[in-house]
Amino acid sequence: MEAAYFDGKKMIFDPNYPDPGPDESLIRVSLAGICGTDLEILDGYMQYEGILGHEFVGVVEKSQNKNLIGKRVVGEINAGCMICDSCKRGMERHCPNRTVLGILKRNGAFAQFLSLPEKNLHIIPDSVSDEQAVFIEPLAAAFEIKEQINLQSDWKIAVVGDGRLAQLICQVLKLFCHNITCFGHHQKKLEMLESFGIDTKTSIDKSHFQIFDLVVEATGSNSGFSDTMKLVKPRGTVILKSTIASKENLDLTPTIVNEITLVGSRCGLFKPAIDSLASGVISVNYMVDSVFPLENFSEAFEHAKKAGVLKVFLKP
Amino acid sequence: MEAAYFDGKKMIFDPNYPDPGPDESLIRVSLAGICGTDLEILDGYMQYEGILGHEFVGVVEKSQNKNLIGKRVVGEINAGCMICDSCKRGMERHCPNRTVLGILKRNGAFAQFLSLPEKNLHIIPDSVSDEQAVFIEPLAAAFEIKEQINLQSDWKIAVVGDGRLAQLICQVLKLFCHNITCFGHHQKKLEMLESFGIDTKTSIDKSHFQIFDLVVEATGSNSGFSDTMKLVKPRGTVILKSTIASKENLDLTPTIVNEITLVGSRCGLFKPAIDSLASGVISVNYMVDSVFPLENFSEAFEHAKKAGVLKVFLKP
Repeated sequence: MEAAYFDGKKMIFDPNYPDPGPDESLIRVSLAGICGTDLEILDGYMQYEGILGHEFVGVVEKSQNKNLIGKRVVGEINAGCMICDSCKRGMERHCPNRTVLGILKRNGAFAQFLSLPEKNLHIIPDSVSDEQAVFIEPLAAAFEIKEQINLQSDWKIAVVGDGRLAQLICQVLKLFCHNITCFGHHQKKLEMLESFGIDTKTSIDKSHFQIFDLVVEATGSNSGFSDTMKLVKPRGTVILKSTIASKENLDLTPTIVNEITLVGSRCGLFKPAIDSLASGVISVNYMVDSVFPLENFSEAFEHAKKAGVLKVFLKP
Repeated sequence: MEAAYFDGKKMIFDPNYPDPGPDESLIRVSLAGICGTDLEILDGYMQYEGILGHEFVGVVEKSQNKNLIGKRVVGEINAGCMICDSCKRGMERHCPNRTVLGILKRNGAFAQFLSLPEKNLHIIPDSVSDEQAVFIEPLAAAFEIKEQINLQSDWKIAVVGDGRLAQLICQVLKLFCHNITCFGHHQKKLEMLESFGIDTKTSIDKSHFQIFDLVVEATGSNSGFSDTMKLVKPRGTVILKSTIASKENLDLTPTIVNEITLVGSRCGLFKPAIDSLASGVISVNYMVDSVFPLENFSEAFEHAKKAGVLKVFLKP
């Protein structure tokens, strides 16, 4: 099959990459999305080697479950061992032996075919387009905040960052809370959020210090973390939604002095994400930037890295 | 009055330091304790200049409240402005304009006299000795964990560190939870904890990885934080009890990948600490190391820094 794989140093397009094995459901990939995590993996994050890509929609070609064959599906990206304590408690996402699609010991979606356990697959309603379906994985990650925190509708909430994931987080939080402010740098991205009733700011000043009950860090940068700690109230809550690549100059002192609760947040359940797209309460069409053929992955990645660009797709 | 003050570079004994002003209750200090925070301040933490010391017991000499005069007291160390939102909600400990005894814009307890607002003072029952009373401030900080977290009696809990604060934390947690393991380096300190029914380990091996529901970081070191993140279960909780002085090599990635909740924890309420000493459920006598006259502060500090030494007192 055709696939774009990462050999630990660079990405390579291979028209004759081996097909996935027969043990799991086989999915023909219709469309895949480039995510910030893919860009981080190319910089060495997770020390992953193999086919990248974890945001996708496709059609099931082979499966033990005959009801899935021919169906349009998305897939949860964590596959647990199903025998450890975490898996037994339904927490496959935290299985110590897990594999993760395109991220950890499991080939991903930048290919003609991928395989996943049958239980990871979700059939997509007809009302959700292929382009929209690719957003289900990051949208589930945004909904994960609601699973972890008892959101109060009257909270003052800040989201730091205005990129792909931050856009989804702002929209999801707006379903449950009125008062949301996004701190970003890109005028066009912030304008979209304004149209959803979200306040936006391009810089932080002293009037914003320590006034937010909840702050979501969605930049993955040290400066984003530092801004986050300025915004949150004493005894407030911070959601860490992006892995922070640098280990230098991270100051945890305000966490202790101001008794802040920091909550790490990763993948989420797919069901609320699928339902929200099917019902139309979450908008993603404005985030579609462009579709590149898989063999032009290099051009696609360069484009996805540009400031202001939202979602870039690869089509096998 | 006699006082030992820090001029930003070194501590100085002054036999003629000005007495505290007349606006607050005046307390003659009977005994004061040296705390890890004092040692950090001498290394530049908080950029504090003035009289150090925030753990004390004393006798009220002057007060608007005549019932306090002549009484033996301890004092909560944070004094709020009483007009801001935090203070109005009873959170003076998080008042942005607060002063903190011997730590922030308020002279401390390494002196013959100190002053505090009347509402900060707590009369000590006769059954609590002066030496025991000095432990009330750090013991309140240990009880603060109970205020912040809904402790489950069947949780597997680890405490990283075996110093002064870690000893109190282990004992407090043992009041509510059965299964507590302390990871430390000092055989004598660990033996004391064993006598309270706490498991102890002198090193971490793979069998301890990701098995604890709650881990309390009580070392304030990068290596302590790194150990803490190894011990805690996915989706578990970490209490950050000591300010981590270094900003280098702090890795928050496991927080996000394993969806850990980090809770910063500082000062606590005095009442449960006083009650626990009065009723005898918490033991502190074994932690008393030595008492130095105030003018010998330099010798006392050198002694307090030594590995294996627990509580060192100064007597004005």
